[in-house]
Amino acid sequence: MRAVMLREFGGPEKLVIEEVENLPPAPGQVRVKIKAIGLNRAEVAVRAGKYPLPKELPIRLGFEGAGVVDDVADDVKDFDIGDRVSIIPVGKQFAEQGTYAEYCNVPVQGLVRTPQCMTDDESAASWMAYLTCWVALIKQARARAGDTVIITAASSSLGVPAFQLLKHEGMTSIACTRATAKVAQLRGGGADHVIDTSTENLVERVKEITSGAGADIAFDPVGGPGIKNLIKALGSGGKLILYGMLDSRPMEITPWSLMVKQLTIFSHMIFYHMEDLAVRREGIEYVTRGILSGAFRPIIARRFEFENIAEAHTYMQSNQQIGKIIVNIV
Amino acid sequence: MRAVMLREFGGPEKLVIEEVENLPPAPGQVRVKIKAIGLNRAEVAVRAGKYPLPKELPIRLGFEGAGVVDDVADDVKDFDIGDRVSIIPVGKQFAEQGTYAEYCNVPVQGLVRTPQCMTDDESAASWMAYLTCWVALIKQARARAGDTVIITAASSSLGVPAFQLLKHEGMTSIACTRATAKVAQLRGGGADHVIDTSTENLVERVKEITSGAGADIAFDPVGGPGIKNLIKALGSGGKLILYGMLDSRPMEITPWSLMVKQLTIFSHMIFYHMEDLAVRREGIEYVTRGILSGAFRPIIARRFEFENIAEAHTYMQSNQQIGKIIVNIV
Repeated sequence: MRAVMLREFGGPEKLVIEEVENLPPAPGQVRVKIKAIGLNRAEVAVRAGKYPLPKELPIRLGFEGAGVVDDVADDVKDFDIGDRVSIIPVGKQFAEQGTYAEYCNVPVQGLVRTPQCMTDDESAASWMAYLTCWVALIKQARARAGDTVIITAASSSLGVPAFQLLKHEGMTSIACTRATAKVAQLRGGGADHVIDTSTENLVERVKEITSGAGADIAFDPVGGPGIKNLIKALGSGGKLILYGMLDSRPMEITPWSLMVKQLTIFSHMIFYHMEDLAVRREGIEYVTRGILSGAFRPIIARRFEFENIAEAHTYMQSNQQIGKIIVNIV
Repeated sequence: MRAVMLREFGGPEKLVIEEVENLPPAPGQVRVKIKAIGLNRAEVAVRAGKYPLPKELPIRLGFEGAGVVDDVADDVKDFDIGDRVSIIPVGKQFAEQGTYAEYCNVPVQGLVRTPQCMTDDESAASWMAYLTCWVALIKQARARAGDTVIITAASSSLGVPAFQLLKHEGMTSIACTRATAKVAQLRGGGADHVIDTSTENLVERVKEITSGAGADIAFDPVGGPGIKNLIKALGSGGKLILYGMLDSRPMEITPWSLMVKQLTIFSHMIFYHMEDLAVRREGIEYVTRGILSGAFRPIIARRFEFENIAEAHTYMQSNQQIGKIIVNIV
């Protein structure tokens, strides 16, 4: 079977598809024939060697995907050959498993049934995003109806799911983008407000939108020095959730800037939280309900063929997309 | 009556006692004849003009104290002349009220009855410290039995109360001090472990004490660049509570250092939390129970006469003390 093997860190051209052995599932595992791969921004950083993990190559790559059960280990009871399944991010399997492949062995705790109402593409675009929003916003930061939430890097695969989840929960979203061209699309994608940070002052606009109070939550995958403005845009008792590090430089935060508004900073990696069985079950049920009710439906930015996965990475890096980039394996 | 009036920011000599008018309590207020003032480290920063608030002088100074009710406004039902009371930090009265004085008008929500088993000195040393520990550790960070908590600047007036509260709740305290001379005293004051950061490596010692896991919580009034070591000393899911800014310089925190261990940073100012009636009631009840049971009993580092309040500030700045510095008014 064919799989992407990363043997050197570097540009998209390092994503080389090789012929590798198609191993049977180990105990507790299911082998999934991958139909749709959902690209994750962190995979670009991993590929470039700009992510702290892993440190040693070669590795397989890919966190997200959907497909069909192709084989099950003898001890697996919950899944059968032919089941439509999607892969959710669980525990330490981070960058160990690899959905950039025709087949992928996944421990059962990393699988959900693909909702009947969804295509493989849609499901591959859903689980990481909605689970991340749910855990980070609802479980960690205890967001609640009436809250106003700043979404930075809003054209990412998490943006539209975040708008939908916030609306579903009676909250208000403020999407931030650096691209003027995306403003209308983000509004169309469900954002209540959109700030074009290339022409508008984020802090002033948030103050305006919130009648001077500041936002309740900032949901940020960037980090770095830009965090200073998010802190300024938060109101009293505000919460900053850091769930990525597109800018891995240090965040310079004065003690007073936190204390004067009693801010809390949460950090979030979904892998970690999905290790907790109770949280995982609750999260899967929550997202499933949202999908079945029609409230949760991701946007697919563009589709690529597996052979063109390097091109898909190039496209992701270009920041032209809104929504999820999907790579299909026929 | 005599009161300290701060007319210029500067050294301890700026604490000038003046003869001022003894105003009657306004509606909702009680006038307290102050017997014991509990010095708070933040007052040194305020005096020196190194605290962000207030910006305009003159002001009265002093957050903490205990004494006797001397007069009550007509609308006040809960307190009578002659009642022994102590002052707790509530809301925006920060640096507006001023316990560095013979008399102080306090809104009723800023008062508790002094426990019968306590002297005025002990009570003036108790409320800010135990309430801060309870709100920050138990309510905000949800510390629980079995947790290990790093206490920095452990010889402050909060150190011993923190050791006692942690022991009371089945937690383990790791006290940090830069003064070798204080190690034995901190152990005597109830710290389970003491790290002398002038000779020992904080991160390594915490790892040793926690068998490699790292601490669950760091409780820190310092901030600044030193935060980096506290972050290193925390374990997976760890929590940093910042409740002061003895070092007001920026904290340089990389996104990854938070994300890889899923850390949370809380900030804490007790004034803010005490505005919430339910939290205030629960906190007062909790601390009262701790005092009555004998579990909570602060250490008085040294007593000064009111006339020597500048000397008391000089002593506080010298960092020789362990426990609370009390200033008495006869």
